[in-house]
Amino acid sequence: MLPLMILTLAHIGPRFPAADAFEQLTHLYLNRLGAFARTEAPAFRTGRALFDSLDRPPGRVPVLVLLDSRGKQFSSEAFATWLGRQRDDGAPRVVFAIGPASGWAEQDRARAQLLLSLGSLTMAHALARLVLAEQLYRASTILTGHPYHTGH
Amino acid sequence: MLPLMILTLAHIGPRFPAADAFEQLTHLYLNRLGAFARTEAPAFRTGRALFDSLDRPPGRVPVLVLLDSRGKQFSSEAFATWLGRQRDDGAPRVVFAIGPASGWAEQDRARAQLLLSLGSLTMAHALARLVLAEQLYRASTILTGHPYHTGH
Repeated sequence: MLPLMILTLAHIGPRFPAADAFEQLTHLYLNRLGAFARTEAPAFRTGRALFDSLDRPPGRVPVLVLLDSRGKQFSSEAFATWLGRQRDDGAPRVVFAIGPASGWAEQDRARAQLLLSLGSLTMAHALARLVLAEQLYRASTILTGHPYHTGH
Repeated sequence: MLPLMILTLAHIGPRFPAADAFEQLTHLYLNRLGAFARTEAPAFRTGRALFDSLDRPPGRVPVLVLLDSRGKQFSSEAFATWLGRQRDDGAPRVVFAIGPASGWAEQDRARAQLLLSLGSLTMAHALARLVLAEQLYRASTILTGHPYHTGH
C-alpha cells in the first residue's frame, strides 16, 4: 500500500492561537481527513521561508497550490477530481498556501502548479483557511463515496 | 436620523446551538455590525415559514436575497456597493436566506430581489452562514471607511 499523501495547509503570517475558534474548526476538518491523507498546518513568517521549506527533503518536491483571487475557481466536485488525480499520480505531498495580505509576488505565482481561487469575495485570512480545510475534507468524502457532500 | 436598517441572516433548518463554534463566530461578526445595522439570525423549519414571516408587519416588505449557487457572484466591494444602495434607498430590512439542502424552489427564486452566490464551491450550511456574516461586516467597513477590509 502506498504511503498516505500529505496535505499541507500553509499560511504566511503569525501562527493562530490553539484556542482560536477558527483554528479549532480548521483542525476539526483536517483531523477528519485522517484516513485519507496526513495533514499539517504550518505558519511561515515570509513567503521566502515557505518556498525554502519546499525543497526539503531534496528530491521530494511537492505539488504547490497558491490561493490567489485571480486563480481558477472550481466546483467542489471538480476540486475533488483534481485532488484525486494528484493522489493517483503518486504526488507525495500537496502544499496549499494562503499568502500575505499583499498577495503573492509574480515569481511566486510562476512556481505554482495551480493558482486556486475560493471565489470573488475577499475573506479574512483565518476564514479562507477554514473554507479550504472544509473543502479538502469535502473532496476526500467525494473521492471515497462518503455521504457528507450529498447530505449537506 | 433614520432608524438603522435591519439585516436578517436567516436559514432553513434547525437552530444552531449557542455553544457551536460556527454560531459563535457568526455572532461575533453580526455583533460588530452594531453601529451600522441591527441584526437578527432566525432559523425557520421550512421555506414556507420563512416566506410567511416576510409579510409581517404588513406593508414593510423587506428586500429578499436568497443564497443560491446559480446566483450572482460579487466582489466584496461590489457587494458593499449593493448593500449601501439598499440602505440609501431607505430599505427598512434586508433578509439574506440560506436555503434547505435541496435548494430553493423555482417560485421561491422568483420572489427574491437578488440571488446571491458565495462562489462555485459547495460549503457546509454553517460555514456559508459564517462567510456571509463576515461579508456583511466587511461591507459595513467598506461603506464606513473602517480599515478592516484593506488591512487584511
